[in-house]
Amino acid sequence: MKPVCLVIGAGAGIGGNVGKRFARDGYHAVLCRRSDEEGLKSLVSEIESEGGSATGYILDASKPDSIEERIEAVEKEIGPIEVVLFNLGAQIGSRTLEDTSYKAFELGWRLATFGLFRLASTVVPHMVGRGKGTILVTSATASVRGNKGQHSHAAAMGGRRMLCQTLNAELAPQGIHVAHILIDGAVDAPDTLGKLLGPERFKELREKRGNEHDGLMLPEKMAETYLHVAQQHRSAWTHEIDLRAYSDLAWWNH
Amino acid sequence: MKPVCLVIGAGAGIGGNVGKRFARDGYHAVLCRRSDEEGLKSLVSEIESEGGSATGYILDASKPDSIEERIEAVEKEIGPIEVVLFNLGAQIGSRTLEDTSYKAFELGWRLATFGLFRLASTVVPHMVGRGKGTILVTSATASVRGNKGQHSHAAAMGGRRMLCQTLNAELAPQGIHVAHILIDGAVDAPDTLGKLLGPERFKELREKRGNEHDGLMLPEKMAETYLHVAQQHRSAWTHEIDLRAYSDLAWWNH
Amino acid sequence: MKPVCLVIGAGAGIGGNVGKRFARDGYHAVLCRRSDEEGLKSLVSEIESEGGSATGYILDASKPDSIEERIEAVEKEIGPIEVVLFNLGAQIGSRTLEDTSYKAFELGWRLATFGLFRLASTVVPHMVGRGKGTILVTSATASVRGNKGQHSHAAAMGGRRMLCQTLNAELAPQGIHVAHILIDGAVDAPDTLGKLLGPERFKELREKRGNEHDGLMLPEKMAETYLHVAQQHRSAWTHEIDLRAYSDLAWWNH
Amino acid sequence: MKPVCLVIGAGAGIGGNVGKRFARDGYHAVLCRRSDEEGLKSLVSEIESEGGSATGYILDASKPDSIEERIEAVEKEIGPIEVVLFNLGAQIGSRTLEDTSYKAFELGWRLATFGLFRLASTVVPHMVGRGKGTILVTSATASVRGNKGQHSHAAAMGGRRMLCQTLNAELAPQGIHVAHILIDGAVDAPDTLGKLLGPERFKELREKRGNEHDGLMLPEKMAETYLHVAQQHRSAWTHEIDLRAYSDLAWWNH
Repeated sequence: MKPVCLVIGAGAGIGGNVGKRFARDGYHAVLCRRSDEEGLKSLVSEIESEGGSATGYILDASKPDSIEERIEAVEKEIGPIEVVLFNLGAQIGSRTLEDTSYKAFELGWRLATFGLFRLASTVVPHMVGRGKGTILVTSATASVRGNKGQHSHAAAMGGRRMLCQTLNAELAPQGIHVAHILIDGAVDAPDTLGKLLGPERFKELREKRGNEHDGLMLPEKMAETYLHVAQQHRSAWTHEIDLRAYSDLAWWNH
Repeated sequence: MKPVCLVIGAGAGIGGNVGKRFARDGYHAVLCRRSDEEGLKSLVSEIESEGGSATGYILDASKPDSIEERIEAVEKEIGPIEVVLFNLGAQIGSRTLEDTSYKAFELGWRLATFGLFRLASTVVPHMVGRGKGTILVTSATASVRGNKGQHSHAAAMGGRRMLCQTLNAELAPQGIHVAHILIDGAVDAPDTLGKLLGPERFKELREKRGNEHDGLMLPEKMAETYLHVAQQHRSAWTHEIDLRAYSDLAWWNH
Repeated sequence: MKPVCLVIGAGAGIGGNVGKRFARDGYHAVLCRRSDEEGLKSLVSEIESEGGSATGYILDASKPDSIEERIEAVEKEIGPIEVVLFNLGAQIGSRTLEDTSYKAFELGWRLATFGLFRLASTVVPHMVGRGKGTILVTSATASVRGNKGQHSHAAAMGGRRMLCQTLNAELAPQGIHVAHILIDGAVDAPDTLGKLLGPERFKELREKRGNEHDGLMLPEKMAETYLHVAQQHRSAWTHEIDLRAYSDLAWWNH
Repeated sequence: MKPVCLVIGAGAGIGGNVGKRFARDGYHAVLCRRSDEEGLKSLVSEIESEGGSATGYILDASKPDSIEERIEAVEKEIGPIEVVLFNLGAQIGSRTLEDTSYKAFELGWRLATFGLFRLASTVVPHMVGRGKGTILVTSATASVRGNKGQHSHAAAMGGRRMLCQTLNAELAPQGIHVAHILIDGAVDAPDTLGKLLGPERFKELREKRGNEHDGLMLPEKMAETYLHVAQQHRSAWTHEIDLRAYSDLAWWNH
């Protein structure tokens, strides 16, 4: 039986590419995303056409029990989750304090912080029983510094990073690897960056920075590092790692 | 008319002492705490007996509109809030992931992160209109590192710190000073540490570390720094500052 | 006998203003600077004309034994050093790797890192004998992030900050307070910023940002915080604090 | 012609194992270490016996021109350096301020900070000419926090980390990848940890923590991550990464 790699947030950017990369490495990829059943199916087909195996689910992580029931069902029906990637973002663009409603502020936390807590609460008991497992968490610059207009996003991501550290402190000695992967640049992802910018500005950015195909961060290349981290020997685990394109300024520069 | 210093979380530790210190410096102290009307009254009396002025309110910050209505009432009935101290903690002791319920996890965020957002959303428009104001935020070691058993607390405090940075980025240029004050040691506070440890262990700790009266952090001494930060000239503002006793190991040591 | 406040690097910016502020608070200020005997004399006169007391010395900190001999002489001839401010910078402007000679790289370390080590090695035994003392260290953004063109400066300042932490870890329990004061903005200081920019650009910047006198950081206002930190009670010491003008972007923003 | 991987500090721990791993991946390994010609020869033989290629040199990095001449000679006689690992440590054990001589303090900087600067100054022009290259830097917990007794080590490592960031800011846009690899645990390395602890305590530690062979960090496993980082696509580069064993507490915990 193949080990399972579960991806929460498997769009056309990081999540989907990580799924594909793990599938190519022999994992069964379980791909969950909020919408676009078409896109999901074609992702599964693509993996299968390469000889890999995958299952796709539409999952609205903001709904109570959605993450929990999916994890339990995967454990029961597909197999032990060896790796899980929590890849939900909560970027809502730049908004002043005045323009950030209580609802928007809470939603950021609910998806980006509480979502990870729900996931960990559900999957960890399974992993502890097996004495192993990996939780990969995609994170953002906002997890280490709050910037203008990022009230909801930064609070959610700052909470997420501290949660990763508490999970790591408790779980590492039990053989469970938690990794916080800080993405510090613009990812070539139509589902997220594309929607944030709108089709025209996204196209423009791609044309301007995409020459040689790496002015933007390429998710299929990023997926290599996700796979590497998941396969580190337990005597040499990474808890925090950053990723950016050679052409990005690090967040501490500018 | 005296400038107003509003304290959210005015117990017998940091909050109450900051209130007293500002009152001694000529502010009208508005003291809010969740319970212990007796304690609140005696705090107000103490301030008045020193020649200062203060008003006390019982306020349950976890209730919708509680912070918001108090701020509006103070602005209307007492005077412009020049300084506000957000002093609500969310420490619930050390709990494993398994023993941290969704409710406990959410409550930490609701008090420690969302509470500050509600406060800022309400008070900032007043301050912006006046082109000045100070928001002091008591914070904890858990805002910069997640430790075992701190799932709820660290996530809440990490979010709080990133929120402070976003507020600062937006508000500093408008003349509003936001300061994140990291308390990295045990405070000699019967309401918080005392309750966490229980009366016997608290007494023991005080006897062991309280010799020369400063093995524990003394809130009346800490209050001096709160006052100083609130009175810094706007050409030399502090956004982040740490405080610990000489006998405490810094969080990065140990 | 007045307590002594020794300032290493007492130019017309932070150092001189800290000297003045402490003198006004009852300290005898011992002011050391590399050059400009005229400026030094007029600083001493200014302090004396306010009723304070001060002594000035020309001191080339890059010379072996210069710091050491001055400290010993002050301890012997003037009085116990209660507070010392290490205020030497090592900013040499932006230089590419290619344009940074081995000599320039070493000089940065020699002044900014090793200079502090020499100071601590000499003054700490005196302070340990008295069970108290304060070492204030002016630091720069380069101590927490390396930026383009800052090879020498950032390496020197990064070393300085880590040295402050080791000193703090060893000395705090012995009653000696070490504080790292991160200056994260442009200071209105003719000796440093003025020389770096040249008279014309400095004048321009002052005109552009100096309106209301606080677009630049005003050293006489910053000195208030230096004094406050030096007078914190030992149950509530600050090890790290940042300072910037309300109009500065924090280093983590931009 | 094989790409060259140059290792400065190729002992029996990280350095030697990284050399072996890169050789196995098709690089020619150039291995430099200060002493133990015997050990060096056997490392080269081991690589050759696996079908790889390597050259070994005794190199005293503390001597002027030693690093510089070796780099120039390798570029001229062996081939273009594609990857260089700077693996010199400067740990001298725990020493109080009093017991840290000026000489010891300076030596730490000379090896750990200035050594990297000399290496970068020499190798970067070659890499810039080729528009690519990788500089891997082994670093230590002391680069991010100063601990008691670490005056020399922490100052040197703090400077090293800030130097890595300045190099990265200048060189990344030119296609040169600089990575700071923070080792936050005890490495199973007889040359460094073994010498620091002495044979008996090292044996004891190995027996106590080495069960299941990964209580200590295993350098051959760590080498996998060094290789991965060196091979990241330039659209997804890591600048900072930490490594520790599952059984190590992260430096921010304890």
